[in-house]
Amino acid sequence: MTYRIGVDAGGTKISAGLVAGNRMIKKIKIPTEQGRGRNQVIKNILKAISIVSQGIKKKEIEMIGIGLAGPVDSRNGILKVAPNIKGLQNLPIKKIIEKTLDIKTIVENDAKCVALAESRQFRCKNLIALTLGTGVGGGIIIDGKIYHGSGYAGELGHIVIDYKGYKCTCGNNGCLEEYCSGRGVERLAKKYFGKAIHPLEVQRRAEKGNKKAIRVYNEFGAYLGIGLADYVNIFNPEIIVIGGGIGRAWRLFLPSAIKEMKKRAFEVSSSSVKVVPSKLEVDEAGILGVSLLN
Amino acid sequence: MTYRIGVDAGGTKISAGLVAGNRMIKKIKIPTEQGRGRNQVIKNILKAISIVSQGIKKKEIEMIGIGLAGPVDSRNGILKVAPNIKGLQNLPIKKIIEKTLDIKTIVENDAKCVALAESRQFRCKNLIALTLGTGVGGGIIIDGKIYHGSGYAGELGHIVIDYKGYKCTCGNNGCLEEYCSGRGVERLAKKYFGKAIHPLEVQRRAEKGNKKAIRVYNEFGAYLGIGLADYVNIFNPEIIVIGGGIGRAWRLFLPSAIKEMKKRAFEVSSSSVKVVPSKLEVDEAGILGVSLLN
Repeated sequence: MTYRIGVDAGGTKISAGLVAGNRMIKKIKIPTEQGRGRNQVIKNILKAISIVSQGIKKKEIEMIGIGLAGPVDSRNGILKVAPNIKGLQNLPIKKIIEKTLDIKTIVENDAKCVALAESRQFRCKNLIALTLGTGVGGGIIIDGKIYHGSGYAGELGHIVIDYKGYKCTCGNNGCLEEYCSGRGVERLAKKYFGKAIHPLEVQRRAEKGNKKAIRVYNEFGAYLGIGLADYVNIFNPEIIVIGGGIGRAWRLFLPSAIKEMKKRAFEVSSSSVKVVPSKLEVDEAGILGVSLLN
Repeated sequence: MTYRIGVDAGGTKISAGLVAGNRMIKKIKIPTEQGRGRNQVIKNILKAISIVSQGIKKKEIEMIGIGLAGPVDSRNGILKVAPNIKGLQNLPIKKIIEKTLDIKTIVENDAKCVALAESRQFRCKNLIALTLGTGVGGGIIIDGKIYHGSGYAGELGHIVIDYKGYKCTCGNNGCLEEYCSGRGVERLAKKYFGKAIHPLEVQRRAEKGNKKAIRVYNEFGAYLGIGLADYVNIFNPEIIVIGGGIGRAWRLFLPSAIKEMKKRAFEVSSSSVKVVPSKLEVDEAGILGVSLLN
């Protein structure tokens, strides 16, 4: 029996899974402990790998995949820009893990891994995935493979929908991410409720029928639809998958997003695209995806 | 000896070229005569082919390529949306030409052909091309081939840079095309000169040092830079080629475009991309590109 280990290392927690074939047979989660420095973060990644692979012989582990938020130099296994896990920026993670464990390790952008996992789920070789969460991640699957361009392609959250718009954490202005991430929900909650409310609470209220909360997600969806129209015009993909923690509220915003997209995109392309929620759980998608790399 | 024929059929003129290997050995241009109806346009396409292939035996002609502005169903050889050459919309052009001449015919979007031709010129397999003219066309080359998605990908002029912006001919609001086409130059000329001036005249004035005209192209470039930042973040391409009739003024707008792009895009990607003017003449690029199809 051979296994693959997928690790999704985020700003607050590290999830790891043991994968056999296409099935995840074990999954764990531990804190990232960013505040304790980069060495501790690496220690915790190694700890997560060790916990999830308990009882498995080392020679049975084919590879370790590590998914990280931000542009990843996957050839060298280095996270180049680390908005959420600053300590890992420019650290040769692949080398460190391989040297420590002597197991082949691949490092990749987390949203790209989600896109890959979803493309297998949907049996679709031309697919765009968006992960709506703290930020907006993106992955482009062309002919069944992750599209990298010269290395860092797929930053789909960082397309401009209003060039004079809100300053984005990336330095640009008016990025889709500012409208369609957790920050976007919070900003809209402020607009409609007059105060900051956590996205999960807004979602809860909307699901209970609160009109203001419903309006928050309608407007959120309209912004998302602008971005979707861009992707449809650029890629004419078969499927656009919406994932990520904020994406869990898809029932609340997908109708207005699709409506706006259809209003804006070329009909030849918009008529055939399917915009759908992720088939996998948020945790699962990244772990499964990163375990599919080679 | 075998030859290929490339035809670039636009709203006002039809250009055709005879290509041997990678060299264009003959080129002609005749009016499209749209006003005289779709049959006349087809007749003129056939006439252009006939003129350019004079003295060549039919069996020496490998294929005919026809480039058209707008989304093309290249499998069936049909122009689906025809903003500039309305008579040809939904006409089975491939079938008509093949039936009439009994020579293999391929129909493709004109800007995609430009992208293909430029990718050969630059010996670059991952390239984006933009044609700035009446509209803004786009072509995406991945692994040396035109990227089609489900058929109509590559409408790079129709990405939104201001979701509340000018109404675009495509129905969307705030498309890059409204800012970076001939219409864009005219609108800026109105802003700085208080009246409509033809883009070529604005270019002439700017080249002579007229400050208002220079400002027109600086602002034009800044808008283009917003779009370039999107492409850089999405595709991380090696090269972005700027072509088209308006693109001829690249000396006037490329510096401000590149500056704006670098301000907005991820540095990991923007630091490596080359934004360059087309190597081929506007006419040549489309004809050569379409002759490269198979």
